[in-house]
Amino acid sequence: MTEFEAALSKVAGDVNDTLERLLKNHDDPEARLIDAMRYSALGGGKRIRPFLVVSSAGLFNVDRSSALRAAAAVEMVHCYSLVHDDLPAMDDDDLRRGRATCHKEFDEATAILAGDALLTKAFEVLAHEDTHASSTVRADLVLALAHAAGSEGMVGGQMLDLVAEHHTLTMPEITRLQRMKTGMLIAVSCEAGAILGKSTEGARNALHAYAHDLGLAFQMIDDLLDVEGDEAVLGKGAGKDAQAGKATFVSLLGPERAREQAELLAVQASEHLDLFDEKADPLRQLAIFVIKRTA
Amino acid sequence: MTEFEAALSKVAGDVNDTLERLLKNHDDPEARLIDAMRYSALGGGKRIRPFLVVSSAGLFNVDRSSALRAAAAVEMVHCYSLVHDDLPAMDDDDLRRGRATCHKEFDEATAILAGDALLTKAFEVLAHEDTHASSTVRADLVLALAHAAGSEGMVGGQMLDLVAEHHTLTMPEITRLQRMKTGMLIAVSCEAGAILGKSTEGARNALHAYAHDLGLAFQMIDDLLDVEGDEAVLGKGAGKDAQAGKATFVSLLGPERAREQAELLAVQASEHLDLFDEKADPLRQLAIFVIKRTA
Repeated sequence: MTEFEAALSKVAGDVNDTLERLLKNHDDPEARLIDAMRYSALGGGKRIRPFLVVSSAGLFNVDRSSALRAAAAVEMVHCYSLVHDDLPAMDDDDLRRGRATCHKEFDEATAILAGDALLTKAFEVLAHEDTHASSTVRADLVLALAHAAGSEGMVGGQMLDLVAEHHTLTMPEITRLQRMKTGMLIAVSCEAGAILGKSTEGARNALHAYAHDLGLAFQMIDDLLDVEGDEAVLGKGAGKDAQAGKATFVSLLGPERAREQAELLAVQASEHLDLFDEKADPLRQLAIFVIKRTA
Repeated sequence: MTEFEAALSKVAGDVNDTLERLLKNHDDPEARLIDAMRYSALGGGKRIRPFLVVSSAGLFNVDRSSALRAAAAVEMVHCYSLVHDDLPAMDDDDLRRGRATCHKEFDEATAILAGDALLTKAFEVLAHEDTHASSTVRADLVLALAHAAGSEGMVGGQMLDLVAEHHTLTMPEITRLQRMKTGMLIAVSCEAGAILGKSTEGARNALHAYAHDLGLAFQMIDDLLDVEGDEAVLGKGAGKDAQAGKATFVSLLGPERAREQAELLAVQASEHLDLFDEKADPLRQLAIFVIKRTA
């Protein structure tokens, strides 16, 4: 394990502990809901978004416990989106992170509710004073996450994705789709660190620009892995995009140019961090990791 | 139309205007999402929860535009819960407020996403500075709504409802279920007024107690209307609870005792308002309206 992978895994462990505490088990009759929320939120994953929150917060000497709560909130939103995306009416996936998807392990109704409850909990966590002493910071976090996750962000991108099944997308269209569907949540992960640290607008914009390029590079590699990846390593079905006839960066650019483009974007992402000192190294290393990953 | 009905209808009109502005149409390719959100949020309804927000805020001389934004946020949460509740995997309803349910008018995937986006938008609206100049008020509104709508509130209650299909509930169990499923959103509607008005804790507690009793009375009448009501007046299927073999207040108490109990609760609800002057009359009148309604 490289030093970077150890750092990534440390954040993943810490955010898991935070999620464990925030999603407390109980034995009331509706406990099935908490079980499904925990199943979906604690089922592994690289925890890239929490790493972005914690690493960005690290630039501004934010309390680690504040950063971890914000990281857990962003991850709840990510996990809810996967639960709803996997539903039969959406992508109809049986496998996620090497395990049965939430509606397969529980049932469809429970999966819908678990997603709803995770999304709701994310905002409860951010608005709670344990996340930050300043209510301005808390309200700003809620506003930024809701904007990134809603109809002008992630959910809007999922709608675009559904609509796009009936069209051939151009490069600008697919870039817009991916920016909304995955890029904005990645961007708000970095911005959360800046909000928590009450950073200058310049620093926040630099992080936004970094995250924007990183998000696109991440998606290009995701598309490549869907074509070239090994189902056992990925922990989810491979080749689904091609089967669904979906336009992806790879179907548009071809695998070689998609990889070149991803590498270019990763370099460009790091350049946006030039105003930061070595505290930004975890973010720089992540940009390299993202294009080298195999799962 | 009585004076009270005119006041209720005035709030409904104003909150519709606010929702119209907050859910702006556009012609981007994902506009289908906004269409489905607007269809679900602007499809009529008595707007009881917005009336509670606006009337409670009226006790503390809150700006009407602040109150209407908070009211719109609460109503978005209510409408999202109806959209998801109507889905085939949940209650599988075709009719709502006299029109096709969202998944019937659009499709299941769009309905899931429209619900998600309405829930997310509610928090975006509350956290935005247009709702209140004080970030403490905004963060408190988010916290209270998220708590009421999440796993310990509305969504937890929906889970309980699903689990309850396989049991016979006792009176304390069904009271707990209804308090979570519908009562807590009704309570937070009143509390929102107190939060916006930076009220004393005593006033906030009184409003909470009023809303608690009102919510139970409301639910008892709902159960009665499901048994005795006319589908054409209700705008949704009647007799669904009995068909589903669900325990309701009516199946437990019988129609006569359920009505008596609802009337008692309405009187009790009003008594909690004794510390307020005539500004609380709209809330007092609502308690009477709730038990007299036929739809």
